Amino acid sequence: MTRPQLSPTPRSTIKRGKERAVADRAALDAVLDAGLICHLSVVIDGSPLVLPTGYGRDGDTLYLHGSSGALTLRTAALDNDICVAVTHLDGVVYARSMFHFSVNYRSAVVHGRARLVTDEAEKMHGLQVLTEHLAPGSWEHSRKPNAKEMAKTSVLAMSLAEASVKMRGGPPADEDEDIDANTAWAGVLPIAQRWAAPVPSPDLAPGWEIPAHVTDRYASRG
Amino acid sequence: MTRPQLSPTPRSTIKRGKERAVADRAALDAVLDAGLICHLSVVIDGSPLVLPTGYGRDGDTLYLHGSSGALTLRTAALDNDICVAVTHLDGVVYARSMFHFSVNYRSAVVHGRARLVTDEAEKMHGLQVLTEHLAPGSWEHSRKPNAKEMAKTSVLAMSLAEASVKMRGGPPADEDEDIDANTAWAGVLPIAQRWAAPVPSPDLAPGWEIPAHVTDRYASRG
Repeated sequence: MTRPQLSPTPRSTIKRGKERAVADRAALDAVLDAGLICHLSVVIDGSPLVLPTGYGRDGDTLYLHGSSGALTLRTAALDNDICVAVTHLDGVVYARSMFHFSVNYRSAVVHGRARLVTDEAEKMHGLQVLTEHLAPGSWEHSRKPNAKEMAKTSVLAMSLAEASVKMRGGPPADEDEDIDANTAWAGVLPIAQRWAAPVPSPDLAPGWEIPAHVTDRYASRG
Repeated sequence: MTRPQLSPTPRSTIKRGKERAVADRAALDAVLDAGLICHLSVVIDGSPLVLPTGYGRDGDTLYLHGSSGALTLRTAALDNDICVAVTHLDGVVYARSMFHFSVNYRSAVVHGRARLVTDEAEKMHGLQVLTEHLAPGSWEHSRKPNAKEMAKTSVLAMSLAEASVKMRGGPPADEDEDIDANTAWAGVLPIAQRWAAPVPSPDLAPGWEIPAHVTDRYASRG
């Protein structure tokens, strides 16, 4: 069985560092699913604007959301090209030479246009996907949005058809002369996002145990 | 004594969530200095492109660097507007209502144009700033770039004059009715980037102790 592959367009074809490009569709999903926020970029009056934004994935659809007044989302909703990046930093690569200092990372970049979700049922579904991405188990636990809150929120849907994935892992790639010279240490200092212990809200009524969907996430440490 | 303030332009004036805007110049420096990579956005053929990129700060100057062939850097070097975002995710905010789910974060966004650094001494200085940002203590420890490596690397310099900082911290901001209803848990699940134990390169000659500038960083855990 062949694994589904990304089909690069000129825009999503990785030109630099091809050895770090990954064409596997499952890799794209994995990078997106492991992230909590994306960086959404739009063009406003010819200038780029990039802001951190919430997202979630449902199959081949990337949902974005935010205040219906947010400039990035309003621009994205007007059938303009947008670009979304999700990046995981996995380590700092200490090389023998400055030139080979690097970072280990997993990066996904998605190009395309977004569609403003206006159908109420799809919008509610999109919000569920977004909430479950940010805070799994919360959709059933917390109060669903009411009509007023729905109106204040924009949900955009974007296809994952045009995307690229790039990764670097492992030790530094030093020059042979520098390895032989042996005048500097070389290795990787790994870094990872870790959960800390949940902090109940100061205005929470007494008697609450922290729910399992929160404690389990913390216990996973990842 | 008045602390230096950011002077917002129309582009760097925060329009949404003003209560989360920070106008303190020291806050901008703190957000930038605490990050390891930025997201650099440029406009190519009218479409936005955003990619993770290395950076470092020296006073009022942000240095960016990468392969001299990288499309983002080549575009940025052509006196085009660029936008740089550095974002720290500090926690997931679990609210009583979906609408108030949020993240705690610190975010800096810088607008402007970059200057390709062509003076060799300034370029070397920029590389030192970038290296010391990514891996403090490494500039003295490792081999400096040679002429061939300098030619393969582009360094850009950008002013921090046009920038904005936005932060969210603390517990969820639920509606009074939801707090009174007391039907859902509310609180914050903090998240932070943490170093793990250094991994020496497999091709490192025997006898190396891991240098203090690496072990100290790991020991700081932050």
